[in-house]
Amino acid sequence: MERRQFLKGAAVGGVAAAASTLAAPAIAQGNITWRMVTTWPRNFPGLGVGAQRLADRITAASGGRLTVQVFSAGELVPALQSLDAVIDGTAEMAHGAAYYWLNKSRGLAFFTGVPYGMTSRELTAWVRYMGGQELWDEIYDGFGVQGFLSGDTGTQAGGWFRTELTGLSDIQGLRFRTPGLGGRVWEMLGASVVNMPAGEIFPALQSGTLDAAEFVGPFNDLALGFHQIAKNYYFPSFTEPGLATELVVDKAKYQALPADLQALVRDICQAEYDQVASDFAANDPRALQTLINQHGVTIRTFPDEILEAGADASKQLLEELLASDDPLTKRVAENYVESLRIVRERTDGNDTLFVQARKRFFEI
Amino acid sequence: MERRQFLKGAAVGGVAAAASTLAAPAIAQGNITWRMVTTWPRNFPGLGVGAQRLADRITAASGGRLTVQVFSAGELVPALQSLDAVIDGTAEMAHGAAYYWLNKSRGLAFFTGVPYGMTSRELTAWVRYMGGQELWDEIYDGFGVQGFLSGDTGTQAGGWFRTELTGLSDIQGLRFRTPGLGGRVWEMLGASVVNMPAGEIFPALQSGTLDAAEFVGPFNDLALGFHQIAKNYYFPSFTEPGLATELVVDKAKYQALPADLQALVRDICQAEYDQVASDFAANDPRALQTLINQHGVTIRTFPDEILEAGADASKQLLEELLASDDPLTKRVAENYVESLRIVRERTDGNDTLFVQARKRFFEI
Repeated sequence: MERRQFLKGAAVGGVAAAASTLAAPAIAQGNITWRMVTTWPRNFPGLGVGAQRLADRITAASGGRLTVQVFSAGELVPALQSLDAVIDGTAEMAHGAAYYWLNKSRGLAFFTGVPYGMTSRELTAWVRYMGGQELWDEIYDGFGVQGFLSGDTGTQAGGWFRTELTGLSDIQGLRFRTPGLGGRVWEMLGASVVNMPAGEIFPALQSGTLDAAEFVGPFNDLALGFHQIAKNYYFPSFTEPGLATELVVDKAKYQALPADLQALVRDICQAEYDQVASDFAANDPRALQTLINQHGVTIRTFPDEILEAGADASKQLLEELLASDDPLTKRVAENYVESLRIVRERTDGNDTLFVQARKRFFEI
Repeated sequence: MERRQFLKGAAVGGVAAAASTLAAPAIAQGNITWRMVTTWPRNFPGLGVGAQRLADRITAASGGRLTVQVFSAGELVPALQSLDAVIDGTAEMAHGAAYYWLNKSRGLAFFTGVPYGMTSRELTAWVRYMGGQELWDEIYDGFGVQGFLSGDTGTQAGGWFRTELTGLSDIQGLRFRTPGLGGRVWEMLGASVVNMPAGEIFPALQSGTLDAAEFVGPFNDLALGFHQIAKNYYFPSFTEPGLATELVVDKAKYQALPADLQALVRDICQAEYDQVASDFAANDPRALQTLINQHGVTIRTFPDEILEAGADASKQLLEELLASDDPLTKRVAENYVESLRIVRERTDGNDTLFVQARKRFFEI
């Protein structure tokens, strides 16, 4: 990398090389610039903003010794080639979500989130204390990369629907935009699932190509204008109880960094996990108030019949992963399910009981 | 090992000093060592361990440019003199909880947690995105220090009781160990509230000086053995929905650090917030299983009558803070309440609905 930059500079003329040799202070000679490609549009609320902030924080806390340049979706490579860009050396880092790479390993789904699976706090408990990171490392070792959690949306919204849903009969054949494993669940419930990029959803709703759409949550959805077409906004998403983002780094280049810079990249990813989760926790409810008060959106919850059928379908998907032919995917699924059984005890038996009591008894 | 033995051996003569002067690279000349005092016993699960890990991570990510030495409670100063130790220059950093310093400002209570107040995720939303950090800075500016969140226990346990509680009548005059604002709430409910350090609780329960005790949660409580005396373990704590820890730094010394080290200290505190919260989320339910399966502990929830009276008392406390004579405490209280009204909408209307649906419909 350094050698390439040097050669590139030297190729322009002899002067540049000579000047940089003279002017650079001792420490600057070790400076590195890395390219971070992302799966997000530039300035995309929460996630794209988070990728840029992560890059800036690494640059700042390293005093520029590791300077990170961000390329948003499509600027250097298309969004869904971000991981390949790190594998083939086009970039040193990719900011995205592990479930975009299920074609590399089905087990990666767990590191973003699965239907009826872990919440964001449960996920960090699993990744950091219950064997999750070690299994993730095993998968990514096969591709020469290292993954770190770098953010989380928290529980997403269930989606935008033109009319109220009374039960399963209302979603038969419904043309619903919802991607990934969540999309498979809705397909099992009878919906006609469509996937399309963010920018195409609004026109498709407007023209009637789509009956309904799910994207992220109020903070992101408000900007896309779905509320102009479909006024029924459903909570929660039972298919995306959380969506964790990742930073993937070329492992050989990462391990060749000085130990302090390795620690710094890892630590700032963890700081950003908290920052992004806090951003959504503060700004989702603010955006929701705008949707309700200024745009006449009606907030609804899914009928039990849909929640229950969704749980059955999610269980079936998880059982497929538990029975995977790929031994590593199977081990990840087993460890995930075992950990979920443990961590949900605290969520159900303590955290949730507190917020229920607060809701019932504490108004201020 | 061999190298250390060599250095140790060399230290007996003049050679070592000469060698180190020669060998030190330029950057090492700027190295700084800071003392971190803490309010926790050494190796205290979750919190004391977290303070040590925070220090080690700063040392590692700075390549030793900022080396942090940890002094646990009582090693350099008593636990409750930690903040004063930073103010008077005995130490550069203190790891503890802001609500220990209510004698400096009542408004500090909010940065640890208040009865029926914010959960850990709500607290970070407030501190990082809704004005909390700025108000905290205003309070601590008065003492020449800078505070950062550095961890959270999450929702704590309600306490250990000898017999089942059927209602408010059972807690009249009950000698209950529970400190801080939570203690004031229990006093308003009729309990006879006692405070004592961790190490004295078990003997006091054993001798009958105490009828009941509350400490943290399963991860911490298991080690202290309360289950040997009181078999009824109550969830949740409505007085401690979260307990955030802080790192306090001498502000002038902090601002005199190079910009990269300032960023690094701030960022690693945020990483540690996530690490400590994840530790409790993973290890509280594991410890609880041990308490139930190996020690015959019975898990209970407080009767509605207690939850409701607790909410009324908590509201009264919060209204006292909203009406504070100290303008800054009043402003913190107002901003906190306004922010709580916003963030709880997401908790109640999305996160909680998801975990309730999962509890009802999703077993695997």
